[in-house]
Amino acid sequence: MSVFAQLASRKDCPRADTAGPVVIMTRIRLARNLRDCFFPDRADAQMRAHIRERCEKALGSLPAFKGGLVFDIERLNEWDKDVLVESHLISRELAQAKPGASVFISKDCNACVMVNEEDHLRMQFLRAGLQFKQAYKNAEQLDKALEKKLDFAFSDELGYLTACPTNVGTGLRGSALMHLPGLVLSGQMEKVVRAVSLLGMTVRGLSGEGSEAHGSMFQISNQQTLGEKETQILQHIEAVLGTIVEQEENARLRLIEDSPEKLFDKIGRCYGTLRHAHVLTSSEALNFLSLIRLAADLNILPPEKRPALDELIVQVQPGHLRGIVGSQSMPPAQRDIARAAFLRERMKAFPEPDFSKAGL
Amino acid sequence: MSVFAQLASRKDCPRADTAGPVVIMTRIRLARNLRDCFFPDRADAQMRAHIRERCEKALGSLPAFKGGLVFDIERLNEWDKDVLVESHLISRELAQAKPGASVFISKDCNACVMVNEEDHLRMQFLRAGLQFKQAYKNAEQLDKALEKKLDFAFSDELGYLTACPTNVGTGLRGSALMHLPGLVLSGQMEKVVRAVSLLGMTVRGLSGEGSEAHGSMFQISNQQTLGEKETQILQHIEAVLGTIVEQEENARLRLIEDSPEKLFDKIGRCYGTLRHAHVLTSSEALNFLSLIRLAADLNILPPEKRPALDELIVQVQPGHLRGIVGSQSMPPAQRDIARAAFLRERMKAFPEPDFSKAGL
Repeated sequence: MSVFAQLASRKDCPRADTAGPVVIMTRIRLARNLRDCFFPDRADAQMRAHIRERCEKALGSLPAFKGGLVFDIERLNEWDKDVLVESHLISRELAQAKPGASVFISKDCNACVMVNEEDHLRMQFLRAGLQFKQAYKNAEQLDKALEKKLDFAFSDELGYLTACPTNVGTGLRGSALMHLPGLVLSGQMEKVVRAVSLLGMTVRGLSGEGSEAHGSMFQISNQQTLGEKETQILQHIEAVLGTIVEQEENARLRLIEDSPEKLFDKIGRCYGTLRHAHVLTSSEALNFLSLIRLAADLNILPPEKRPALDELIVQVQPGHLRGIVGSQSMPPAQRDIARAAFLRERMKAFPEPDFSKAGL
Repeated sequence: MSVFAQLASRKDCPRADTAGPVVIMTRIRLARNLRDCFFPDRADAQMRAHIRERCEKALGSLPAFKGGLVFDIERLNEWDKDVLVESHLISRELAQAKPGASVFISKDCNACVMVNEEDHLRMQFLRAGLQFKQAYKNAEQLDKALEKKLDFAFSDELGYLTACPTNVGTGLRGSALMHLPGLVLSGQMEKVVRAVSLLGMTVRGLSGEGSEAHGSMFQISNQQTLGEKETQILQHIEAVLGTIVEQEENARLRLIEDSPEKLFDKIGRCYGTLRHAHVLTSSEALNFLSLIRLAADLNILPPEKRPALDELIVQVQPGHLRGIVGSQSMPPAQRDIARAAFLRERMKAFPEPDFSKAGL
């Protein structure tokens, strides 16, 4: 059974029903390593297999992971890996990692542990909307439970040791997937990226490191892991994100007030194109859906449609789309035709934009 | 009363109810000059006024022009002139001509005579579709009737004398407004322009000399006026146009057969954009309507909608649009917003494209 089919059958798979208009998703990641093994990059295949085995044993004994999913990356085809990346369950880096790389997904799909990525273990917790506290609470629980079963590399002076010095200390990275069309449309995104990086945080595109910002979606995360307590780090992230949310909301308001027709034109054309196009690339589809999501947030489309849009934003990506269409070996040109057909059908459920209702 | 209002009140104004899928409109033009006057460019204001007076007297005595319309160009504002140009009743050149320039339009709006353009008289006859013979029959009748009242400059050796040597002889120019989206989309238009000019004919854009080919609409006309009989000239034009029609039809067929999804995508996006855009320039609107017209010809939209589309193609142009909206002093940005609103409303009468019916 394909990864797509296995994930689709899990009803509790993280769904964006509670996503916010600006913060789509919160993620907490903890990096941990076993004390007596080389980091994955230096470890040979045998050692990586050994690491994987120890992690599997430890995770398998935890109730949250019983009945969960386990995938060995080397056994997956590109399609399967795409589906995991698009679902935010693994990183692009893990998808390209050496033998022994695997991912353990909890039964409710809210937690997952990548094994043999850059570090031995990378625990991840996904939550829809802005939920750092809840996500960190879950992370702490898993961390404590695993610490009883695995001997983590830890220095009293530095904290948790990691393959890359940027993760040493707490090993904690908090990040949020944010939808910032207001800032992008009003040309303020560059300014925000500069300000955020001065505050010790990084801005990346939808699919993480090195990826482009399709659909005005950005991942914003902390860079600092050393010398601060976890709670301080999270407080700092939340404060910065709060400011970005505010700026995005202001930008949206100004777009409506200063040049409504320009904004309505953009949204209208996206709607019309999604309803009637016959060829759509993934990047085009994301950009159009992004503006339709903005329209729902501005009451131009029914706001209750936002979860359906967040679902579409995942579904139009190559891996998921192949799963939906049921064909693995589809060349990109065919995929663009299938994507357009899929969206034409799905967009029928969306009423025509009503610009008279526009407002925040 | 504005030119727009005066033209709109004439029920018999040339309408494209009988336009063809490829040949939208046929036009016959005869250039004539009074024997004893300087050509308009050399004539002073007084002489041009005298020319105008003599033409008015001659035309006013003809039944076809009784109850017709007369406009003195210098009394018209830009808006009025735009309306006349967009209706194919005057040339851009007449719109910019000196005092004394005027146009006489027959009661049924099928004939018009420009006075003091490049020549003293330029009689024009418009017919929807490919109707050179009928248009020329009408032209001949008017020419003979006027010849009884005005003394035309004529040389037994050369024929009718004109301001520009290219018109000497018959003074006859036959032209057709053609819709060639198939040739444009398949990148063959340049080849056609070259071939047509080797056959002694000229290809220009929608609004005549020097204008761009918006909406894949081209005016194709003869260059030769000397040394051939009128019937020979018209036979030659009809033969060349027939070949172009054939090539356009072949190009359309190949588009459907070779890359239907690309064509459907273009048409679908145009339809969606016309239905939902909030800002549309004149050139964008023409290009989109052009593809929707193609869709009607390909049975993707109801073919009986073509006349309504041909009407829209005129109405979205700046002069007509100001008339429809009822505001002369509309800056271009406002006009683009009004144009989009007008098209959103009008396009509601068009059903969604049905690509399963596509064919010639």
